[in-house]
Amino acid sequence: MSHLHRFHIAPETPTAPTIALPREEAHHALRVARVRHGAEVELFDGRGRVLRGSLRPEGRREAFVEVTAESQTPRPTPQLTVAVAWLHRDKAVETIIRRATELGVGRVVFFGAEHSERKPKDSDKLQRVAVEAGKQCGCAWIPDLELAAELGEVLPGSAGDLLLADMHGEPAPLRTSLTGGDAMVLIGPEGDFTEEERAMALKAGARSLSLGGNTFRTEVAAGVAAALVLYEWGRLGPTA
Amino acid sequence: MSHLHRFHIAPETPTAPTIALPREEAHHALRVARVRHGAEVELFDGRGRVLRGSLRPEGRREAFVEVTAESQTPRPTPQLTVAVAWLHRDKAVETIIRRATELGVGRVVFFGAEHSERKPKDSDKLQRVAVEAGKQCGCAWIPDLELAAELGEVLPGSAGDLLLADMHGEPAPLRTSLTGGDAMVLIGPEGDFTEEERAMALKAGARSLSLGGNTFRTEVAAGVAAALVLYEWGRLGPTA
Repeated sequence: MSHLHRFHIAPETPTAPTIALPREEAHHALRVARVRHGAEVELFDGRGRVLRGSLRPEGRREAFVEVTAESQTPRPTPQLTVAVAWLHRDKAVETIIRRATELGVGRVVFFGAEHSERKPKDSDKLQRVAVEAGKQCGCAWIPDLELAAELGEVLPGSAGDLLLADMHGEPAPLRTSLTGGDAMVLIGPEGDFTEEERAMALKAGARSLSLGGNTFRTEVAAGVAAALVLYEWGRLGPTA
Repeated sequence: MSHLHRFHIAPETPTAPTIALPREEAHHALRVARVRHGAEVELFDGRGRVLRGSLRPEGRREAFVEVTAESQTPRPTPQLTVAVAWLHRDKAVETIIRRATELGVGRVVFFGAEHSERKPKDSDKLQRVAVEAGKQCGCAWIPDLELAAELGEVLPGSAGDLLLADMHGEPAPLRTSLTGGDAMVLIGPEGDFTEEERAMALKAGARSLSLGGNTFRTEVAAGVAAALVLYEWGRLGPTA
C-alpha cells in the first residue's frame, strides 16, 4: 500500500515545472493531510497523466508542486462500462462510483429505468467521489461518468459484449460471453427491469449474467459483476 | 429479487408447527416492516434451515409463524474462509461481514496482526450484521464468525488452499492456486503484514494472490478476493 499523498488536477491543467494545486486540494494537503514542505507527492488528472514532485506551500492556503517526473498511462483496454439504473439511495450511487474507480472500470452510466425513482444528484458531486477514490487507489484513470434518460439511450452506444445482470433469464457462462472487445454490464433498479426493458436489452444482443443464487443489493451486483469481468480480462491479477 | 419478508431464528429453536419470533424480529415484523396477519414469511436459522409459514401477530409485541414448509440446505462446499486482520474502522469490519454473507463465504476470522490497532467490537454486534445481511440476501447459511489473537492461531486450522492477498510477492494465478478443496484468503491490516507474518504464511503454504495494480482498502480487498474464489468455484453463476 502506497503512502504517497496524491492530489488531483484538472485534465486541462498544462504540465509545467510548477503546478498550483486546486483550492480544495491545497486545503486537503495543508490542513487535512498536513504534508510538509518538500515532501514528495503525486498529481494525477484521472486521464492517465501522473506527475511526481515536491510540495511547496505558500502561505496558509496555497500550495505548489515542483514537478520532477511525468508519466502518461494509456487508457486500459478493453474498456468496461457499468450501466446502472438510477437508484434512490445516494449512498448506493456513491458506492458504485467508488468501487468502479478502484477496480478500473472505464465508464459508469446511470440511466432512468421504468422503476427508477429519481435521477442521481448533480454530477459534480459524483465526479468528486470518483476523484477521491482515485486518490486513494493510486489509479491513473478514473471512470467517465454519464447520465442517460433511459435504457434506450445507453444501448445504441454499447459496442462490444453486452451483459444483463439478471435473476430471470437462462444465464450464459461469463467466460463465453466475453469475446475480447469492450463490454457493458447492465444493472437494473431496486424494482428490477420491466419485461419491455429486458426484451430491449436482449434484442440489442445482451446475454444474461447470473451472479449466483443470493439476492444482491444493486451496488453489490454492480461491484461484483465489474470485478468478474475485469478478472476475466486479467486486470485483477494473473489468470494463467 | 424476492420481496418475501425473512426473519431469523436461533439455530437451537426446534422446528414446530408454531414458532414464536424472537423479540427483536417480532418488533421488526410488526413495527418496521408492518407485515400483515396471514402474510407469508420465511424463517431462516443461518444453518441451512429455512421455514415458510404465515405470520400471526399477537398483541402489539408478539408474533408467531404457523409453519407450512421446511427445507434444509447442506452447507455449501468447498468452504471459503476469509481471515482478516483486526481493523480500526468498525465500518470496514461490518462491510466485510456483510459482503461475506451475501457472497456465501463460510467463515470469517478476524485476527490480531502485528500492525492491527485493536480488536473488533463484541461479537454479538458482528453476528447481528451477518444476520441482517442474511435476511436481505436470501441465503440459508451465514458465515461462522471467529476472533483469533494472532495470525499463528489462524494458520494451523487452514486446511486447503491458502492465499495471501499481497502486493509484494510474485503472484500465482488464482485459478492454479485453487486445487478443489476448501480455501482460506488472508488479508492484512491497514499497515500491511510484517515480514515475519508474510514468512509465516508462506511457510504454511500460502500462495500470493494479486488483485491487480490498484491499492484496495482492506474491506474491498476482502470482498473482491472472496468473489473471485467463489466465482472460480462456480458459485457466482456458471463458469462453463
